[in-house]
Amino acid sequence: MSLRKGFAHERDLVRRLWEHGFAAVRAPASGSRTKRIVYPDVVAIHKGKVIVMEVKIVGRERTIYIDRKKVEKLREFASRAGASAYVAVKIVGTGEWLFVPLELLVEAENSYKLTRDALSRAIDLKTLVTTVKGVKKLTEFQDKKASEPT
Amino acid sequence: MSLRKGFAHERDLVRRLWEHGFAAVRAPASGSRTKRIVYPDVVAIHKGKVIVMEVKIVGRERTIYIDRKKVEKLREFASRAGASAYVAVKIVGTGEWLFVPLELLVEAENSYKLTRDALSRAIDLKTLVTTVKGVKKLTEFQDKKASEPT
Repeated sequence: MSLRKGFAHERDLVRRLWEHGFAAVRAPASGSRTKRIVYPDVVAIHKGKVIVMEVKIVGRERTIYIDRKKVEKLREFASRAGASAYVAVKIVGTGEWLFVPLELLVEAENSYKLTRDALSRAIDLKTLVTTVKGVKKLTEFQDKKASEPT
Repeated sequence: MSLRKGFAHERDLVRRLWEHGFAAVRAPASGSRTKRIVYPDVVAIHKGKVIVMEVKIVGRERTIYIDRKKVEKLREFASRAGASAYVAVKIVGTGEWLFVPLELLVEAENSYKLTRDALSRAIDLKTLVTTVKGVKKLTEFQDKKASEPT
């Protein structure tokens, strides 16, 4: 897929997350001079809860291979940020986004494998949003005690 | 300043924040199709604490004007993310970065003004890092009780 098309899908994801109240940003294009810095494809934040994502676009549900280095960099970024890391898979035919926690990836040769079994355990955008928004921090409970239903 | 030069300074800031243990990302270039989405120039995260920044490069300490729309978008992004917002000012001559909280900006016509007085109250990178890392969350104290000195 061309870089331009990839960005269009990332923008689609950023827009949807924005509609759900998140702050979200997609990564810059990496030119030759910036190759050393590897960013997550999309970073989304809601009130201090952070999710980082590697974006994969596929025509149908199938096994997906992800470069080992990219997975390791994503893990490092997530660790520093205190974030949850996902592979965000867009099934082009349906236009649906599916989210697979990085922990479900399986090591393969020079890559990590997202199996069809793992994909079948993915969550959809609505569930992702609920998961992030639903789990409140102790500090939030204290700040907003009884101000909104849980 | 050319876009390319601007990016080089943003990368410099991202690299320094990374060296201090942060996860950091700079915004993508906004082409004509993405103009509706305005990102912070740099987003930096440390264990769920988020700072968002508008980057300004100046030759010497002087009054700086920032587009009103950009300030409002930065404020909106920060509100969603639960982030602190800063103007990150690089003084080219010294290579030093200074950070001014958005709250110190003064409204002007179609813009916000960062006065020399506000700039004199800026914090440096080390202080910014300490500020973000120093304030721990209740949840962190509970997770790591007595595992490290405070």
